[in-house]
Amino acid sequence: MKYSDAGVNISRAEDALARIRDKVKATKRPEVIGDIGAFGGLFRITGTDTVLVATTDGVGTKLELARLLDRHEGVGTDLVHHCVNDALAMGAEPLFFLDYFSTSKLDPEVFSRVVGAMADACRAQGCALLGGETAEMPGMYAPGAYDLAGFLVGGVARDRILDPAAVREGDVLVGLPSNGLHTNGYTLVRAICDREAARAGVDLRGFLDAPRPELRGGTLGDALLASHRCYLAEVRALREAATVRSIAHLTGGGWEGNLPRALPDGLGAAVDRGTWTVPPLFRMLVEWGSVADAEAFDTWNMGIGLVAVIARGEDRAALRSLPDAIRIGTVERARPGAPRVRWQ
Amino acid sequence: MKYSDAGVNISRAEDALARIRDKVKATKRPEVIGDIGAFGGLFRITGTDTVLVATTDGVGTKLELARLLDRHEGVGTDLVHHCVNDALAMGAEPLFFLDYFSTSKLDPEVFSRVVGAMADACRAQGCALLGGETAEMPGMYAPGAYDLAGFLVGGVARDRILDPAAVREGDVLVGLPSNGLHTNGYTLVRAICDREAARAGVDLRGFLDAPRPELRGGTLGDALLASHRCYLAEVRALREAATVRSIAHLTGGGWEGNLPRALPDGLGAAVDRGTWTVPPLFRMLVEWGSVADAEAFDTWNMGIGLVAVIARGEDRAALRSLPDAIRIGTVERARPGAPRVRWQ
Repeated sequence: MKYSDAGVNISRAEDALARIRDKVKATKRPEVIGDIGAFGGLFRITGTDTVLVATTDGVGTKLELARLLDRHEGVGTDLVHHCVNDALAMGAEPLFFLDYFSTSKLDPEVFSRVVGAMADACRAQGCALLGGETAEMPGMYAPGAYDLAGFLVGGVARDRILDPAAVREGDVLVGLPSNGLHTNGYTLVRAICDREAARAGVDLRGFLDAPRPELRGGTLGDALLASHRCYLAEVRALREAATVRSIAHLTGGGWEGNLPRALPDGLGAAVDRGTWTVPPLFRMLVEWGSVADAEAFDTWNMGIGLVAVIARGEDRAALRSLPDAIRIGTVERARPGAPRVRWQ
Repeated sequence: MKYSDAGVNISRAEDALARIRDKVKATKRPEVIGDIGAFGGLFRITGTDTVLVATTDGVGTKLELARLLDRHEGVGTDLVHHCVNDALAMGAEPLFFLDYFSTSKLDPEVFSRVVGAMADACRAQGCALLGGETAEMPGMYAPGAYDLAGFLVGGVARDRILDPAAVREGDVLVGLPSNGLHTNGYTLVRAICDREAARAGVDLRGFLDAPRPELRGGTLGDALLASHRCYLAEVRALREAATVRSIAHLTGGGWEGNLPRALPDGLGAAVDRGTWTVPPLFRMLVEWGSVADAEAFDTWNMGIGLVAVIARGEDRAALRSLPDAIRIGTVERARPGAPRVRWQ
């Protein structure tokens, strides 16, 4: 199975973005630093050293699983963590967050579980929940369905911005394990699970709720709804211990869609897959869906949620600072016309 | 007809918000100024005089009309203007904007029309379009439907923040005309139009496309999709000419839902409706839907999109600065237990 068969087409999104690129460029103000395509937008505040980093995200169709299993708190947490990680990838720490919650008929209990979890996640990460919008739009959503968007502003001193231009050949790639799929590729997951449940002759809910030996007795539902891990403490520790050149947050588009965003033109990543074990959840999904290897790594994080590019020679110090960090590869010259991520 | 009959229940939203109030308060950081309920959240940037104002909004079911009439540009413009006006209500000018576009299957042409219009509106208001998220969520939306959220950050010098606490009894209310319904109350509008079209024996599209003498030969569709007016230039001129104490942006919840947000506890507004003419569009909707007077003013702006509270004695200077501004009333003591807006 392929992600595009499940209805998500990343090249369609790229086409759409290409059409408006010039119009977006025309809005540039002198305070804006950098170009479109980074994990967050950068905006200088006049008269200070502070640069703001702004990012917006959604949770995708993980929402549909949360709804099916009546476990709404997780997606609130996911949204905050996703945004925090995008800010981290620019070198920033979170300052404040706003949420957008949209549904056909507001259920105050579901709303308070989702947005309450966002508030808890904001507090845990030291981020102010500064505002939000609640939209009730009859007929726009299926009964019980809702959509979420999050918006986060972080701050970073100008000389602490992470800029892919600083990356050099021979720098080291350090990976941090993910906590499952985080918030990406759920449309493909749902298509796979629907088919597999039908094959097994059970309904989707029963399929997701059954304990599985491959998951050490846990359920598929638990594994799929595990929270998007927040890397704030880890990135702080890494930057304390070593020179972090840049960071990639592995989200929509998987490895090839994200790791090159942390590299300058002309450089690529040589990644040794033998350095970590792909978690059982991903292996099950790949097997059930007969998902091709490249497709899986272009859709899901496959066990690594964030990759930091560390200055050559400082990787040991970096790894010592974080017990679960893994040296997964190095930066090399890119080969013209080939993918930027080369698997070893 | 009532807004709640059409499926939008503002007290349900208030109940939902009340449930999370304490959790949101717990996220407060020392940089946060003020409390929940303002038109935007305030966040000080350490080491400067600058305070950031952050706001998020959607367009509501005006989206459905735009889709029906294949006129997508307007809603992009609406979203930017709505956010800019909310920032203005706090005293801020726009700095940057981010958008969230969510749909089941991305149509690059529709996307580029909507988001291209946002970029154009941002440029016209001097605001950087700093980022965005495009979500493709198969099955979440009806075919062709999409949802939008906008996030805007503005900036204001600390001593230029508009604070309702500054308002005094006897201050003057100056109204600025709206350009139609802006982005509120469309669910009720659609219910009214559906019924009226059925009564007339035509389909909704034909009903919206017919020229109407009441609208000087314009169509209902044109009138309903007119852009949310942006008041940036007007507010600049007003603040140049007179002491603006506070501003209310009349959006969801109409007059009673918004004008009191620009007043301190204990003060109310005495508004003389004879000072402006309710535009024909609103009169038609009220008549077709047999909408009670209070309901109409609690749902729609009824012809005034923004109200500025001007220091007593400076109203002439304020009115001279803007040809279409109207003196609509004064600030008075609130009567306990009664609505804060008293019609004269």
